Amino acid sequence: MKDILDRNQNKAEEVRTLLREKKVMMVNIISSPGAGKTTLLERTCEALADKTRIGVIEGDVATDRDARRLQKYNIPIVCINTGGGCHLDSHSISKVLGHFALDNLDLLFVENVGNLICPSQFDLGETFKLAVVSTAEGDDKPAKYPMLFTGARAVILNKTDLIPYTNFNVAAFESDIVSLNPGITIIKTSATGGEGTDRWIGWLTSQLESFRAG
Amino acid sequence: MKDILDRNQNKAEEVRTLLREKKVMMVNIISSPGAGKTTLLERTCEALADKTRIGVIEGDVATDRDARRLQKYNIPIVCINTGGGCHLDSHSISKVLGHFALDNLDLLFVENVGNLICPSQFDLGETFKLAVVSTAEGDDKPAKYPMLFTGARAVILNKTDLIPYTNFNVAAFESDIVSLNPGITIIKTSATGGEGTDRWIGWLTSQLESFRAG
Repeated sequence: MKDILDRNQNKAEEVRTLLREKKVMMVNIISSPGAGKTTLLERTCEALADKTRIGVIEGDVATDRDARRLQKYNIPIVCINTGGGCHLDSHSISKVLGHFALDNLDLLFVENVGNLICPSQFDLGETFKLAVVSTAEGDDKPAKYPMLFTGARAVILNKTDLIPYTNFNVAAFESDIVSLNPGITIIKTSATGGEGTDRWIGWLTSQLESFRAG
Repeated sequence: MKDILDRNQNKAEEVRTLLREKKVMMVNIISSPGAGKTTLLERTCEALADKTRIGVIEGDVATDRDARRLQKYNIPIVCINTGGGCHLDSHSISKVLGHFALDNLDLLFVENVGNLICPSQFDLGETFKLAVVSTAEGDDKPAKYPMLFTGARAVILNKTDLIPYTNFNVAAFESDIVSLNPGITIIKTSATGGEGTDRWIGWLTSQLESFRAG
């Protein structure tokens, strides 16, 4: 396992160096199945498509359903089917980068396989990891699955529209996250309805500006 | 990987033989994080505690929060913390079986680590696998994560109380599941409120009777 992680890390650094040269910011989105990653990407494409050149790598165990949902935005999309594999690794990312015209790209999203555990352990060469949690999963997820939240730059708390129908405790959720990662940014959204996505887009745009300047 | 799975399978058969001798039915419960496995166990303990001797193995990446939620039922519980590991295996189950008085047990639940992918690949020696899906995850989960649904004897569609607030399509969900596994039993519940749990308890009791007779 250590050998696998070491080889993954070496390739991740290669990917990171290449994307740095090409000035492409890569965001590795990780969540449980059904937290709303694809819907968040839909809102993001709608908000940014005119001013930011976006590409997407879709990681899925099976089917190309998520990739097909994004085709309407006329952006470059590559679908990686892991055939049962529980995460993407830096080698799989490196292999598909050639399908993108990196000189014509500002922002590359990786929608990782839906899994709160394994993807957290594999650096893909991303600029940063983004965690997405649905309120319907319960407020105890950061404490029970700490690795992702320790390593992510921001967490989207999605499906806030469902809070009135659950026993989700926002204060407990935020307190657990901050004790794992005091510097993390927490953004609340309901991606289906669009609430809160303006704050997400504003934060993302500021990250892109810092990345380009840095 | 093949070697790991072979060794897991051998130990799983040992566990299965032992539990068969002791007439203990073991149910391996698998779901995404936050689908409602622990709440379903709470309702099950409440309904069956007087007539069925229940034990629970709680698998978690970190914390003993789920185990603590079940302590009020005065049943034997063993918590396995995987320390980052994404699934339980038959060796971890075999090791903790000694903590249970198997002669005084009818039903042993394993609440697997919250993960829709990896736990499906590891036989624990269970009598059968039970899949749990929350409606908030979306109706596309069986098609996108087929392994669990192919191997499970039943699937609980939980959080039916949230359906009015989502775009969940029950017919599409059922159709995808049945095309993967025509013989699977689908039971709809809202474990928090208790709706539908009587059908779950009835089905579970019939499985226990068949197991004992078989």
